[in-house]
Formats: sequence, structure tokens, C-alpha cells
Amino acid sequence: MSGNYVHGYTEREAERLHDQAETLTGLLHGDTRYPAGSRVLEAGCGTGAQTVILARNSPDARITSVDISEASLEAARKRVRDAGFKNVTFEAGDIFDLPYEPGSFDHIFLCFVLEHLADPRGALERLRPLLREGGTITAIEGDHGSTYFHPDSPYARRAIGCLVDLQREAGGNALIGRELYPLVTGAGYRDVHVSPRMVYVDSSRPDLVRGFTRLTFTAMVEGVGEDAVGRGLMSREDWERGVADLYRTAGSDGVFCYTFFKATGRK
Amino acid sequence: MSGNYVHGYTEREAERLHDQAETLTGLLHGDTRYPAGSRVLEAGCGTGAQTVILARNSPDARITSVDISEASLEAARKRVRDAGFKNVTFEAGDIFDLPYEPGSFDHIFLCFVLEHLADPRGALERLRPLLREGGTITAIEGDHGSTYFHPDSPYARRAIGCLVDLQREAGGNALIGRELYPLVTGAGYRDVHVSPRMVYVDSSRPDLVRGFTRLTFTAMVEGVGEDAVGRGLMSREDWERGVADLYRTAGSDGVFCYTFFKATGRK
Repeated sequence: MSGNYVHGYTEREAERLHDQAETLTGLLHGDTRYPAGSRVLEAGCGTGAQTVILARNSPDARITSVDISEASLEAARKRVRDAGFKNVTFEAGDIFDLPYEPGSFDHIFLCFVLEHLADPRGALERLRPLLREGGTITAIEGDHGSTYFHPDSPYARRAIGCLVDLQREAGGNALIGRELYPLVTGAGYRDVHVSPRMVYVDSSRPDLVRGFTRLTFTAMVEGVGEDAVGRGLMSREDWERGVADLYRTAGSDGVFCYTFFKATGRK
Repeated sequence: MSGNYVHGYTEREAERLHDQAETLTGLLHGDTRYPAGSRVLEAGCGTGAQTVILARNSPDARITSVDISEASLEAARKRVRDAGFKNVTFEAGDIFDLPYEPGSFDHIFLCFVLEHLADPRGALERLRPLLREGGTITAIEGDHGSTYFHPDSPYARRAIGCLVDLQREAGGNALIGRELYPLVTGAGYRDVHVSPRMVYVDSSRPDLVRGFTRLTFTAMVEGVGEDAVGRGLMSREDWERGVADLYRTAGSDGVFCYTFFKATGRK
């Protein structure tokens, strides 16, 4: 799977994930806090952008963070160590085939993972036995189809469409946020609750203009430009106009909207 | 303007507006409460769907509700009378040319009005002198471009696009929600704050499945079918598939998302 990660593993991408995590921390993670002593599995920790938040929000939980990429794990280990947290254990593993005993965890947490999997429901099904009865699962995902903005631009919309297309080609689904309810219920969890987390950005919110519209979302789109143009999904001229139009929404009369979805369920 | 009201003035439309108002009352109006004795102008009250909510939430405010359509005013009068409220005065008038003295109102309220105007910023500018210094304006609008759903369907998306096209032809803007911040600031109000109100519907929320996905949104789209097909915007077959696909999102594994925007500003 790791070879298909649509955003690649560059340093700029690592920075983008970091900016994203810092800007959105409260919105996405503020209500995820695990009790002292509880055993938490972070499935697909990547470079640890969310791991440090988990570790900070639940300082007395025992967190196990797994990822299939050794390089990502190394970055995550360093990030968590640099942040001074000692409540995380890192282990390499494929979330479709983890070596833990049934009922090993009280809580499972996934963030921006399901979107990259060809079989997200299968992943949720494989994780379920690892939870104790009554344990919870939390999954957070974006949905690029939730994006709209002012001024509107067909070029910008098409550029985002390229990102969706590329992620689909890589076996993922950039529109997965809206599907969390049927996915998590379909995988056998009960009491499923989905809470949308909308990021609304206008010029009265300069931190989000910079931190979300520019450094997170538009930078992410910009990052797949060579791929999109190289594969002929858009002409270079149209692509550049699309990216410019996205940056334009960060202007003083611009508005940018995006929605993340947070699902919780119980075994 | 009244002749251009895209949804028409049928009884079914009046029912739809009523269902809409009942389902969304808390989400859209819960935080709008005007103090005893304050003078409130509701600009563009239509058939009074929001007027009864205003009157209930602010029982001791003195509400003046105006509309350009005498027929709508008559329906609004009856609705407010039937609901037992006595704190509303109805007056016919064009919101671009109201006969009130400067500073006549402490608060102005508009809901689902700007979307139908060719010059929404002009309307906001014309209303501003009617506010006392420090008085507030509140504007609530939808944005049909904020709609997405599962299962996704290009036919359903196109059917919604027809509604947007028809409203544009009628001089309005069905994508106005996202523009409220630049519109209200551009019209000279200060301390403008826009709060998105997302309606997220999955099968764990049966009241919204029925009250919003089916009876409000899809019924609204369905209501312009003859117009859309008659003008050749879509073939009848594609249209019917689009509407069926929208109803499909009300199924047990379906999800439907829509966002309203509520702007407040101060003179």
C-alpha cells in the first residue's frame, strides 16, 4: 500500500501534514481523549502528525501506533520523542493483518487512513476483533468533494477533481468522508455516530486563510501538479490557472469551505 | 421581483417552506433572539415560515415583516394569526425602497431572500440606513453548491445544477451562502461574522432523512422538473434518474449533506 500513497513521501509533504495537524487540532481532535491506562491502537500513524496530538490529549493512555512504512514510523518516532511524549509504542504492521490477540485494545483510532485503502470496510472489519467488547473505534477522514469556494472557478474545481482521480487510480477514495456512516456500520460496529467538522474560512479568520486554505489544502493540490499534467488530466495552463484560482480564494473577499468527518462506533 | 421567484407560489411550495422551517428551526434560528421592546425588521417575509419562528423566539420584540407580494403577506398574516402571535405587523413594500425613517430599527433579519435578488449587495446597502447605529443585521442563506451525498450520482448533481441555472436565469443566485461574508462586509456593515450551519443526514437521523433530504431538498429539486425538462436543461429520462438518485440518498446506507450560512453584522 505504501507505494501508492498519493501524496508521496517528500519532506514538503511531511511539513504539509504537520501544518494541517496544527491548524485543525482542536476541530478534529478536541473531543478525543482516552482514560488513564486505556489501551489505544492508532492504526496507520504515518509520520506521527496525529500521534503527537493523541499523546498530548491522552497523556496517561497506553498508545500503540502502527504503520506499514518503516520510513514513516522512523519519522513518527522522532516527532513523538522530540515532543517529549513517552506513552507511545511504535510497531511496523499491516492494518489488514496485525499480530495482536483478540480484545487487545480498548480503543482504535484512524485518521486519514481509510481514504488510501482499496478496501476500507475490510480494514474496519479486520480491526474489530482487536477491540474488547464495548471498545470504541474513531475514524477521521476528509472529503474533497465537500470543497467549494468564492470566487468559484471551474479550473480550480477541475484541479481538485484531478486529485480525486489520482487518488482513485492509486486505489483510494478522496470522497470517503461522506461514506463513513455506512462504512463503519457495515463493518459491524454499533452506536455509530458521524459528526461533520466543517472548516469555514473567510478573511476574518487569517490563521485559517494561511494555515488551511493556503498551506494545507491548496498546497496539497499543488503537490500533485506534475502528476496531473504529466498524465494529461489537465493542460499545464489550465492547471496553473486552477491553482492560482484556489490561492485567489485566500484573498480579502474570498471564502473557502471544506468538511472533515469524524465517526465513532462501538464493538 | 415576485414574478421571478424561482420556486413559484403554489400550495405545495408553501408546504415545503413550512416543512423546511420546522426541521431546521433550531439549527438556523436557535441563536437569534431579540430583546423585549426592540424594533425588528424582517425584510422579505414571504409566506411567514420564518416569521412565526421570529415571533416565538422573541415574544416581546416588535417585529415588522415586509414583503413585495400581497399574496404572500396574506398567507403570512394568517400563519402568524393562527399561531397566536400578536407581536408582528405586516406591511407591503419593496426592500429596495422601504418608507421608514433612518434608524427606525434595532435589528434587521433576512432569511432566504438575498438568493432571489439580482443585486443582493444593493439590498443590504439600502437597508443599512434603516438601522440605528450599533444595530445588527442577520442574513441566512443556503448554498446549493454545498450539496453532496452518498451514493454519488452525476444525474443527481446535474439536476441540482438545473436548479442553480434556473435561479440564475431568474436573476438570483443559489450559491449565495458562501458569499455572505464579502456581501455583508461590502455593503458597509462591520464586525461581520459568518457561521455555517451544516445539515448532515444519515439513517441514524430519521427525522432529517424525512424532513430534510426528502421533504425539503429533494422535493424542492423535484418541483422545478417541468421547467428544467421544458427548457431542455436535461432530458426527462436523465432528470427522473437524478431525482430518483436523490431519493436514493435517503436509503439506509445513504448520506446527504447541505450547508446554510448565517451572517451577522453591525452598523
